[in-house]
Amino acid sequence: MRAWEIISDGGVDALALNERPDLEPGPGQVLMKIHASSINYRDLTTIEDPVSRKLPFPTVPNSDAAGEIVALGAGVEGMAVGDRVASCFFEDWPAGPISAAIMNTALGGARQGVLAEHVVLNAGGVIPIPPHLSWRQAATLPCAALTAWHALNQPHPVRPGETVLLLGTGGVSVFAQQFCNIMGARTIVTSSSDAKLARMRTLGAAETINYRNNPDWERDARQLTRGIGVDRVVEVGGPGTLQKSISATRVGGHVALIGILSGVAGTVSPTDIMRKSITVRGIYVGSRQMFSEMNAAIAHHRLDPVIDESFAFEDARTAYHRMREAAHFGKLVIDVS
Amino acid sequence: MRAWEIISDGGVDALALNERPDLEPGPGQVLMKIHASSINYRDLTTIEDPVSRKLPFPTVPNSDAAGEIVALGAGVEGMAVGDRVASCFFEDWPAGPISAAIMNTALGGARQGVLAEHVVLNAGGVIPIPPHLSWRQAATLPCAALTAWHALNQPHPVRPGETVLLLGTGGVSVFAQQFCNIMGARTIVTSSSDAKLARMRTLGAAETINYRNNPDWERDARQLTRGIGVDRVVEVGGPGTLQKSISATRVGGHVALIGILSGVAGTVSPTDIMRKSITVRGIYVGSRQMFSEMNAAIAHHRLDPVIDESFAFEDARTAYHRMREAAHFGKLVIDVS
Amino acid sequence: MRAWEIISDGGVDALALNERPDLEPGPGQVLMKIHASSINYRDLTTIEDPVSRKLPFPTVPNSDAAGEIVALGAGVEGMAVGDRVASCFFEDWPAGPISAAIMNTALGGARQGVLAEHVVLNAGGVIPIPPHLSWRQAATLPCAALTAWHALNQPHPVRPGETVLLLGTGGVSVFAQQFCNIMGARTIVTSSSDAKLARMRTLGAAETINYRNNPDWERDARQLTRGIGVDRVVEVGGPGTLQKSISATRVGGHVALIGILSGVAGTVSPTDIMRKSITVRGIYVGSRQMFSEMNAAIAHHRLDPVIDESFAFEDARTAYHRMREAAHFGKLVIDVS
Amino acid sequence: MRAWEIISDGGVDALALNERPDLEPGPGQVLMKIHASSINYRDLTTIEDPVSRKLPFPTVPNSDAAGEIVALGAGVEGMAVGDRVASCFFEDWPAGPISAAIMNTALGGARQGVLAEHVVLNAGGVIPIPPHLSWRQAATLPCAALTAWHALNQPHPVRPGETVLLLGTGGVSVFAQQFCNIMGARTIVTSSSDAKLARMRTLGAAETINYRNNPDWERDARQLTRGIGVDRVVEVGGPGTLQKSISATRVGGHVALIGILSGVAGTVSPTDIMRKSITVRGIYVGSRQMFSEMNAAIAHHRLDPVIDESFAFEDARTAYHRMREAAHFGKLVIDVS
Repeated sequence: MRAWEIISDGGVDALALNERPDLEPGPGQVLMKIHASSINYRDLTTIEDPVSRKLPFPTVPNSDAAGEIVALGAGVEGMAVGDRVASCFFEDWPAGPISAAIMNTALGGARQGVLAEHVVLNAGGVIPIPPHLSWRQAATLPCAALTAWHALNQPHPVRPGETVLLLGTGGVSVFAQQFCNIMGARTIVTSSSDAKLARMRTLGAAETINYRNNPDWERDARQLTRGIGVDRVVEVGGPGTLQKSISATRVGGHVALIGILSGVAGTVSPTDIMRKSITVRGIYVGSRQMFSEMNAAIAHHRLDPVIDESFAFEDARTAYHRMREAAHFGKLVIDVS
Repeated sequence: MRAWEIISDGGVDALALNERPDLEPGPGQVLMKIHASSINYRDLTTIEDPVSRKLPFPTVPNSDAAGEIVALGAGVEGMAVGDRVASCFFEDWPAGPISAAIMNTALGGARQGVLAEHVVLNAGGVIPIPPHLSWRQAATLPCAALTAWHALNQPHPVRPGETVLLLGTGGVSVFAQQFCNIMGARTIVTSSSDAKLARMRTLGAAETINYRNNPDWERDARQLTRGIGVDRVVEVGGPGTLQKSISATRVGGHVALIGILSGVAGTVSPTDIMRKSITVRGIYVGSRQMFSEMNAAIAHHRLDPVIDESFAFEDARTAYHRMREAAHFGKLVIDVS
Repeated sequence: MRAWEIISDGGVDALALNERPDLEPGPGQVLMKIHASSINYRDLTTIEDPVSRKLPFPTVPNSDAAGEIVALGAGVEGMAVGDRVASCFFEDWPAGPISAAIMNTALGGARQGVLAEHVVLNAGGVIPIPPHLSWRQAATLPCAALTAWHALNQPHPVRPGETVLLLGTGGVSVFAQQFCNIMGARTIVTSSSDAKLARMRTLGAAETINYRNNPDWERDARQLTRGIGVDRVVEVGGPGTLQKSISATRVGGHVALIGILSGVAGTVSPTDIMRKSITVRGIYVGSRQMFSEMNAAIAHHRLDPVIDESFAFEDARTAYHRMREAAHFGKLVIDVS
Repeated sequence: MRAWEIISDGGVDALALNERPDLEPGPGQVLMKIHASSINYRDLTTIEDPVSRKLPFPTVPNSDAAGEIVALGAGVEGMAVGDRVASCFFEDWPAGPISAAIMNTALGGARQGVLAEHVVLNAGGVIPIPPHLSWRQAATLPCAALTAWHALNQPHPVRPGETVLLLGTGGVSVFAQQFCNIMGARTIVTSSSDAKLARMRTLGAAETINYRNNPDWERDARQLTRGIGVDRVVEVGGPGTLQKSISATRVGGHVALIGILSGVAGTVSPTDIMRKSITVRGIYVGSRQMFSEMNAAIAHHRLDPVIDESFAFEDARTAYHRMREAAHFGKLVIDVS
């Protein structure tokens, strides 16, 4: 079977599509035939800088896969060959709070990834996908969708009527918009592109701010909440925007700080966190239990993930280049079989 | 009756002890005869810079008072003349999350303070004190003790066996040590004074770090938790220490960021918050319900607040000077009557 | 202005429509002109047996009203004449847990009710209604809808993918079905009427059980969850069904026991509660904060309350007789003006 | 090695002390040498009626053991030979809510018990014990102590100043008294023995009621809370007392219903649960995480479990007879080695 491998620190163009030995699931494991894999910015930065992450060569990139079970290891119960599943970003985070041990089970990083024709995973590292989704759609869920779900549902769910600030129109923010729709929350979305903001409005955004024209967008966000500030921020922009996000948040509000961006720089003053009793909470994808609840919501409301473009397995490098261009809206997906 | 008043931006020495008209409680209010008032660093900075806080002249300083009810306004139920009570830092924060409206009820800031022989407060703005406490001891509770209690009990209580990092040996940290004792938590305390660290050990601290000798105290704190990091930080040092506090915290841990210090400067990188899924939560004293639970705990365990020194009412200026010297251990209290 | 009054223990036919003096709002109160009032089974039993409730004569019945603010008392902020509002079942339950004091503020019981052309209420006892609702629709919210919302959202919200058992097709159960739709929960509904079950299916019910044909409906409910049992029950049937509801619930599941039915009889064995670690939680309508969140959800999803029939103000007695016949599906509403 | 076995439905006197083959730990397991085992009423009823529990013969009874690790299976990390540990009542309940699958891992019931010289358990089925405890003391923790801890800490911890009603002076109630001491809660204890009530007072009980003299003890309990009712009940008496316990509970209060008693009979009216918005919550021992927190609290406060009497391994039958006599105060312990 074939897999894409990071074999050097040469970046995207140095990725290699290699033949690998066939796999068999051990006790408690499953063999998954992969049909599609989506990519996240985190995958790109991993490929671009495997050294600072201390990754061995070769490492298969990517955390997100959708496919079907083709073999079960000994002792696996409650699953069957033919089950349609997605990979879990953390192969071993069943439920509860995160820990350092859980972090060491991330696919496409601490553990080998899924940009391959087959993969062996712990039975608890795959999860049934909503029936109405295609392979491509299901492949978008493990990282970006679950991150958005986590940000909106922990430490307590966004309540109906609350206002949520979404930064940009990347994969996490687009999913967050769709989840806010079903949770009854009102969104304010920022972007530097009027065209993308128009698409977010079509998806349900209540308010949009083009931050190119409005460098003081945090003031606009406050004004759009009658001076009170937003209830929650899904902060994916990193340090460059965090100060403004905190400034846009109401007394007692929450900022979910997404941990998937690397290479962050810059700093933030904690004065506003103190002065407004704000909670800033680092978020790192989510547990299998959160994934299960998210999938139930997606199935119930028949949400359709937004896919910008899909690529053939052999053209995976092009997909990462497209990610680097950052002109997409929604997810980039690689067809595997 | 007499009250100390901020009558200019002249600082501590410009405070004036003036005669004021006698007070009567309106509907829903009580008249409280004050026996003692403790001071907090926040009171000092208010006196030193009333202008940037937009305070009117005169403003009575201080939030913390202990005394007795001497008259009840119309409609006040469940209280009686002679009840021993303390003031609530926020005159109107009965329970639940904080809001901007609640913040506007802070005594000795948004509202007139309590360094006076009498004060009229809403009935919900006073609370019965633990029976075993003297007036001086009870006067230490409204700000510092409640801040420590809040930091250790929200969003969920510190669990037995957890490790809590306390910065310095100020009023909040000393109370936090006493509360950790009864909650079954192990503490690590930092200070630049070996003598103060020795006192904290006497109070129950499990580990102490003199940060003067150990500028990399965050590494020491991690080592004292077998490399894992502490479960919670009661962060009173402000921006100058926050970066290190976050560095000392475990994956998934909490940093309670105390909002009583003013004049903060400096910044922090959010990378560790993201990378370790840490929660940084701004804390601003606490609600009357938290105060009630804290008092029950203090009464049950017969905790004795630590008082460094007490001053006569007429010598209030000296108390603030002592606060500025920052050599005390525990609380500074002014006897009012 | 006119109001319906309970003037004796003579039941529905002894209700009197009397002229009353005009009202003026006191400090902190509002005067509300009522356009519609819905009735609940609790109102019927109150009218039928005011003596055992120790109600004075006359007592105005009903808790549920929709109308507009026509005058503001002194000190009322954030509201204006013309605001479209509903009454809160408990005139003084802003937020947090219930207490005995809160229970003593129930309209149409401990306090005078709202089946009147005008009513004076505390400003915190009214709440803005979703803009898309008619007066009739808005009048259905204060008791039945909020009870269903409370049952599904406390102590934690029903999660997407969970299964909820709804008993019967009364006002609470119909609202619960609509809320389950937007929360992503699957429902199993019981009734003795195939026609009503068909309507519930149209509203979104996943499964229905006619308990007339299936006296062992709790077994059917378990079978419909692959033998596991349901996650939550909205138990409105009272003691006659509680034993079966508990039997239908999974290990660790919740039963929300609705406290609006009076005249309950029968008993239940606690063995299953112990054996399956089930939580049985008494529910009594809900707080203003819950009401606010519910209204935001209703507005966001443009939910339309289901009204069975409406009656002229003068025909109020007919509405209660219809309630006693128990053949309705959804709510019974009285037009007031 | 030797183990006591249930080999028929002949009750305590039919227990057999048999030689068994030596054990070796498999992957992920540990071999534990047992020094002491405590007994619970549940063990007695299991021995008296193994048939209705569908237990195979032979079944080793008892869930509670303290001892040391003498061998580690493959892949076990973080433990070492010589570690002092206790058994977990549920061999596989690491954390989170209970489930049917977890219930099927109970020792001395669904799985073989620990009244044996050695036992093999999953590594997650043992837990380090507080250092200051003897083997006998540590053997009292797995069932009774953890049940009390669970009842007082879930769904949220008892708050300082709350009042807790304890029924009787069995193992769970005695531990509950000791935990209430450190949690700052006030207790009311019932018993039919003045001598036992005196002992509970010595342990810290604030109020005691001899229910032999006061058949209406629920009224007394309400009076002792100024008519309000208690905040929480640790209900171990079963159906015979549940009605009165609910009657003694305040509006919005909690009843923790302990699921370890078998052979329950009788029923309860749910009217009071509804009328007072009470939560009745079935409790079944607790998770390993709760056990860990409890042990930290026991170690920090140096709590000493109360042991009534201990028995030689060969005299195990006498211990069960003593349990049936029900005259003990605190725990009955069997020395194993």
